[in-house]
Amino acid sequence: MGVGMVGYAFMGAAHSQGWRTVGHVFDLPLGARLAAVCGRDGTAVRAAADRLGWAAAETDWRALIARDDVDIVDICTPGDSHAEIAIAALDAGKHVLCEKPLANTVEEAEAMAAAAERAAARGQVAMVGFNYRRVPALALARRMVAEGRLGTLRHVRLSYLQDWLVDPGFPLTWRLRKDRAGSGALGDLGAHIVDLAQFLTGEAVAGVSALTETFVRERPLPEGSSAGITAAGTGSGSEPGAGAGGGAGSGAAGFGQVTVDDAAVFTARFPSGALATFEATRFAAGRKNALRLELNGSDGSLAFDLERLNELSFHDHTEPASSSGFRRILVTEPGHPYLEAWWPPGHGLGYEHTFVHQARDLLHAIATGTVPAPSFADGLSVQRVLAAVEESAEKNAVYTPVPAAPVHASVNLV
Amino acid sequence: MGVGMVGYAFMGAAHSQGWRTVGHVFDLPLGARLAAVCGRDGTAVRAAADRLGWAAAETDWRALIARDDVDIVDICTPGDSHAEIAIAALDAGKHVLCEKPLANTVEEAEAMAAAAERAAARGQVAMVGFNYRRVPALALARRMVAEGRLGTLRHVRLSYLQDWLVDPGFPLTWRLRKDRAGSGALGDLGAHIVDLAQFLTGEAVAGVSALTETFVRERPLPEGSSAGITAAGTGSGSEPGAGAGGGAGSGAAGFGQVTVDDAAVFTARFPSGALATFEATRFAAGRKNALRLELNGSDGSLAFDLERLNELSFHDHTEPASSSGFRRILVTEPGHPYLEAWWPPGHGLGYEHTFVHQARDLLHAIATGTVPAPSFADGLSVQRVLAAVEESAEKNAVYTPVPAAPVHASVNLV
Amino acid sequence: MGVGMVGYAFMGAAHSQGWRTVGHVFDLPLGARLAAVCGRDGTAVRAAADRLGWAAAETDWRALIARDDVDIVDICTPGDSHAEIAIAALDAGKHVLCEKPLANTVEEAEAMAAAAERAAARGQVAMVGFNYRRVPALALARRMVAEGRLGTLRHVRLSYLQDWLVDPGFPLTWRLRKDRAGSGALGDLGAHIVDLAQFLTGEAVAGVSALTETFVRERPLPEGSSAGITAAGTGSGSEPGAGAGGGAGSGAAGFGQVTVDDAAVFTARFPSGALATFEATRFAAGRKNALRLELNGSDGSLAFDLERLNELSFHDHTEPASSSGFRRILVTEPGHPYLEAWWPPGHGLGYEHTFVHQARDLLHAIATGTVPAPSFADGLSVQRVLAAVEESAEKNAVYTPVPAAPVHASVNLV
Amino acid sequence: MGVGMVGYAFMGAAHSQGWRTVGHVFDLPLGARLAAVCGRDGTAVRAAADRLGWAAAETDWRALIARDDVDIVDICTPGDSHAEIAIAALDAGKHVLCEKPLANTVEEAEAMAAAAERAAARGQVAMVGFNYRRVPALALARRMVAEGRLGTLRHVRLSYLQDWLVDPGFPLTWRLRKDRAGSGALGDLGAHIVDLAQFLTGEAVAGVSALTETFVRERPLPEGSSAGITAAGTGSGSEPGAGAGGGAGSGAAGFGQVTVDDAAVFTARFPSGALATFEATRFAAGRKNALRLELNGSDGSLAFDLERLNELSFHDHTEPASSSGFRRILVTEPGHPYLEAWWPPGHGLGYEHTFVHQARDLLHAIATGTVPAPSFADGLSVQRVLAAVEESAEKNAVYTPVPAAPVHASVNLV
Repeated sequence: MGVGMVGYAFMGAAHSQGWRTVGHVFDLPLGARLAAVCGRDGTAVRAAADRLGWAAAETDWRALIARDDVDIVDICTPGDSHAEIAIAALDAGKHVLCEKPLANTVEEAEAMAAAAERAAARGQVAMVGFNYRRVPALALARRMVAEGRLGTLRHVRLSYLQDWLVDPGFPLTWRLRKDRAGSGALGDLGAHIVDLAQFLTGEAVAGVSALTETFVRERPLPEGSSAGITAAGTGSGSEPGAGAGGGAGSGAAGFGQVTVDDAAVFTARFPSGALATFEATRFAAGRKNALRLELNGSDGSLAFDLERLNELSFHDHTEPASSSGFRRILVTEPGHPYLEAWWPPGHGLGYEHTFVHQARDLLHAIATGTVPAPSFADGLSVQRVLAAVEESAEKNAVYTPVPAAPVHASVNLV
Repeated sequence: MGVGMVGYAFMGAAHSQGWRTVGHVFDLPLGARLAAVCGRDGTAVRAAADRLGWAAAETDWRALIARDDVDIVDICTPGDSHAEIAIAALDAGKHVLCEKPLANTVEEAEAMAAAAERAAARGQVAMVGFNYRRVPALALARRMVAEGRLGTLRHVRLSYLQDWLVDPGFPLTWRLRKDRAGSGALGDLGAHIVDLAQFLTGEAVAGVSALTETFVRERPLPEGSSAGITAAGTGSGSEPGAGAGGGAGSGAAGFGQVTVDDAAVFTARFPSGALATFEATRFAAGRKNALRLELNGSDGSLAFDLERLNELSFHDHTEPASSSGFRRILVTEPGHPYLEAWWPPGHGLGYEHTFVHQARDLLHAIATGTVPAPSFADGLSVQRVLAAVEESAEKNAVYTPVPAAPVHASVNLV
Repeated sequence: MGVGMVGYAFMGAAHSQGWRTVGHVFDLPLGARLAAVCGRDGTAVRAAADRLGWAAAETDWRALIARDDVDIVDICTPGDSHAEIAIAALDAGKHVLCEKPLANTVEEAEAMAAAAERAAARGQVAMVGFNYRRVPALALARRMVAEGRLGTLRHVRLSYLQDWLVDPGFPLTWRLRKDRAGSGALGDLGAHIVDLAQFLTGEAVAGVSALTETFVRERPLPEGSSAGITAAGTGSGSEPGAGAGGGAGSGAAGFGQVTVDDAAVFTARFPSGALATFEATRFAAGRKNALRLELNGSDGSLAFDLERLNELSFHDHTEPASSSGFRRILVTEPGHPYLEAWWPPGHGLGYEHTFVHQARDLLHAIATGTVPAPSFADGLSVQRVLAAVEESAEKNAVYTPVPAAPVHASVNLV
Repeated sequence: MGVGMVGYAFMGAAHSQGWRTVGHVFDLPLGARLAAVCGRDGTAVRAAADRLGWAAAETDWRALIARDDVDIVDICTPGDSHAEIAIAALDAGKHVLCEKPLANTVEEAEAMAAAAERAAARGQVAMVGFNYRRVPALALARRMVAEGRLGTLRHVRLSYLQDWLVDPGFPLTWRLRKDRAGSGALGDLGAHIVDLAQFLTGEAVAGVSALTETFVRERPLPEGSSAGITAAGTGSGSEPGAGAGGGAGSGAAGFGQVTVDDAAVFTARFPSGALATFEATRFAAGRKNALRLELNGSDGSLAFDLERLNELSFHDHTEPASSSGFRRILVTEPGHPYLEAWWPPGHGLGYEHTFVHQARDLLHAIATGTVPAPSFADGLSVQRVLAAVEESAEKNAVYTPVPAAPVHASVNLV
């Protein structure tokens, strides 16, 4: 399968590593070829193609989609261009992998999910890039929940803490502008933990009550801000650096308004009755990429921290109290998800491996003609939760029900 | 100073250890004598007096208060009797130490704070038993916040997780009855973390948005439930055991309604703009006494877990990124709060030491005639937050402002 | 039982807390009364008696032994006086508790063990103060080893790391003088880990190969060094502070020779074939009281760190690899050793509780007329290992067999 | 630079990932091309070439060396073939990267170091694959030691614990045969920790005292054991699986003798006076790849565990005691070694990244004509320590001096 990627910043680099590696590690039903990468700046995109290993470079995403040697379109741009590119690619008969959050609005996400639905009827696959589902420890956590190791779920607790905005001198990059990024910590980090909560529990969030805050409301404009869509990367819960793909308008010195949230905290209910708390922030000094979660059920509990991504903590409540306790499972055994292909026990994986696994799973879905997980419907489901969070935050935190997840969301399939 | 204690279950035993030990460890301005303990069952209270080291036993708390050899009345009963006993003791000219939560309602707490105010004018001291302020690591945390080590506060995150109700066969003890305990996890565990949040930040919670839940709504009645007020202990965030001081009415076999919350989750705002999340539950399998907290500020962060109570985790955000990180301060150095009196570095303290420290601080307040912290006004301040939580939970989680803290609350004195 | 204690520094204070508390917490077959404390300086010992709760004070240990109201002699002095006092006390018909290490030489220890043997025939009990056997987590570890949870033992690994000598300005206290302390880190810290290794495995060390080192060979003399035997406390693995019980001769300003080891590292073999490593040092910057150990067997492993004394880490190797891992057992459950008497789950104990447990176990041994563990024979067994370590260190680390443990050592009884 | 690799099992796969990735991540002075891979079994090596991304396959290592398109020979075979291949490659004018341990005997290692010396005069580079020097946390540790952050070193403590031999049914693979592997845990795991100790301290081990043990002396022969040199991978501290490259003779069912050590424990001295302990074992149940180390100096301490390879623990002893403690440095900052090329802070790396870094450093050494670290002289230095360990173990653990490190060992260059 020929892959064409739009965007080549942080996320593009991570995806490239996934595409380059997957065939050398996993036994695949279909191979992947790095056909072409696309960005607006011709010189820059050609340099990126060389460095990242893409055979060709394009400066117009429509041209990329039109290429015969491109079977899969991989969208690594900011959220404001996802819908247009993804729908065009699907309508052109391509498989699509789109970075998260799926879109900047529920309306866009709905249109994308509808396009994915139409395309599925033609045998095409559309997947959204919630890569943390592919951390082996989290895939194992899902397996253990599905096996019933936790019993009836009581508590779900997720936070995603980063600290790159603590410094008020950090510039106003595209991630801090509502028109480009849709939202701030909520869409960037919150989207991940909402998706994981739904993935791990197999339930869709029923409703939320939320507070959001922008602590630093004005920031210096980045220098020389001229980046367009394709020159800008998008993220998977992280900032690619001040200079990369920034741009808040004039490029002149001076300050601009931060138009997104710096942090969001919300509580939620799940249909099963479980209570949940969520927190997403870029203002937690010392927490670099601390996506932490804990699930408590009547028969056991699970805990995880992305800063120690090879470990899953598990408490088996059915054991005698005198010898039970949270155990650290080092998720590097051959029997663990994705691990059959990697190194011996104890030889840990890193962040980028999630993109190798994502590529593997996408190729399997294409080969078998199955709806991938997370599908665009899953992406839409997350988008509806994020919209409910914003609505609740505007309405004095009142509990705001989330519309039912769309039919093909994986929470309906579990 | 002669001490008279009402109640002798779990909390009474812990307080006794504090009173017995304080004079042998600390240099005190005033000594403490274990004069008398009070409980309704004469045989049982005499046995308790013998075991716990009290010189005399009483079966009527009014008689205890009336004793000439009692200068301090220490109230370790369930919340429904706090107001009556405390006000009577204060009006009788005694100093009072009252277990938390201060009362079962805001009205009672207001009456108690008013009585404490009147008594203060006569030189009497009234303190509420939020003993976790006396964990050296948390006293150190407060000191570091006050020194400005955290800069501007952005996030406050506290949870208090226990698991003794996971088993649906656990009986309906007094802690699960609204008439006795006032509320469930909220008043028992939530009170501690609300007080700590206010203590550590030096700010009063401005408003809250809350969800509460009772997961198991019916439980077996405890056997032989006949316990009265003074035979029942009260707690400091823990269950004294199914049999101790239970009693849900008839004592007959059968089931009864749980009339309190099993769990409460809430978000909050602080006047400084910081966002907060709180969680209190008795349904977190594997978490035994996990009072965890984290504060994130512009210059640093602090984290703590009561299950490792001799440790405080601190990140100094003013250090170079390449060598910074959360450090584990072992809070056992002579320069740490309360540590001058104990063991060499690295020789940890336990849970009960908080009661020794509480006794010390109360005796110092009496000797110097100063308003103690936490005062009854602090207890009232917490009570108002808890009431706002309950109100918000009833009103669909809508953000509910908390009335200003009373004048003598320590958050107004910082 | 009336207790008479010799020495009242750090160890004396810790023992006093044990004696004061034991009867209020545990159900005991025999009570303990703090009859008298002994020290050379009359004024100081009377002050200590007042502060620590002893009914009387003596300035001559022979007088203490002679008292009718003293049934148990508790020896908390430096090692050079252990033999004389203990033997005299035993010959006078008293029960004896003696701080570790049992003596400064094997010869002394042999005489003491012989005296204990004679006294046992008369129904007297002699116990050595290896208090860490009474940490609930370590008592649980022993129980699990005895139950066979570890299978065949392969590796034993213990280190005891402190850092109070890192500063070359720390004065030359009695602990740094061979004539008083016998040895340095070896006897103070190494004695603990040798005893624990034998206690946990149920095996006596077969032979050792050792290196020792004194990093700082000269130190300032302490001010006003005049302390005599009984004015000086002794330790249980820690320094009571520069001034307490120091004394290196003249008391004049100036420097003196450090005549003991600062650190000892040794390897060992056990009769079962297991390999062991030991390390004791006062030069591990940042490690305050880090007694760490790990046992690896064919069916499981155990790990422990005294700086987190309420936790035991256990790996069950008989579980499926995909869900196994080291679990953190919070050793605060009612079913754990010594825990029936303390607080609810998750409410941790501290260092001093080991002395309460020691007092309990001694009183039980007296009441039941059983040989206590650790007995003087156990103390002698440790002493022989320490002597073999010193011999090996002098002989270029050559493997040095340890003479068989004496007949009544608990390793022979398991 | 064209790379030719000999061996394609576990280590070959890991090296391949390094060679494939390095040019896409780092800015390099020279590129690397995967020219050819070599193995004895033609079918198998062609399959491996396809899977791992090598352009060609060879079945004779002499043919591989002779290829014009091979500039670098990368040796990933068991230790018994290292010397022959490496010397031939160097003599043929190729740069060489050779897996650790450098050789099976000191004599071989001396010949290799001599060949490297001659080749260096011709501008060739010879590096040994101690890849853990390239873990960013350990490179940072070295930097901090070199900056003097630890002051005078007192203690060095390393252990490398695995557990894949706990099961007595694990077959007798080549790693358990002295003729193939040279030694057991000692050469496989011990070599790593000896190299790291010398790398981190900048000192060569002065002498050692050692015990070794083979716990399980007989094991089942692997099935179908026919693998030759090039079909067998070699390791970097891990077992590639029972079937991969095994072979203990006949291939018939039955048992064979284990002729290497299962575990080695040794103490050591460094020229600066620091004491060290080392432990290498494949019998530590539950420890999968636990290479742990701690250094204690007069001004600070460092600790590390390979199972959490993105973290370095640092205690700064020059800070005030009341706020100091071991801090967890998450070694993912742009200013950390190797990190400029990877992901944002908090996005961890894995085991295989060490091979990317190794490739980078080798290419830099070739481009700049500098002696690489670790050089063959470093490999020889480690070999001499291992030989002294074996000698000491044979001589009743007597302290055995290690001959001085060869002139071009990096410990002489620091």
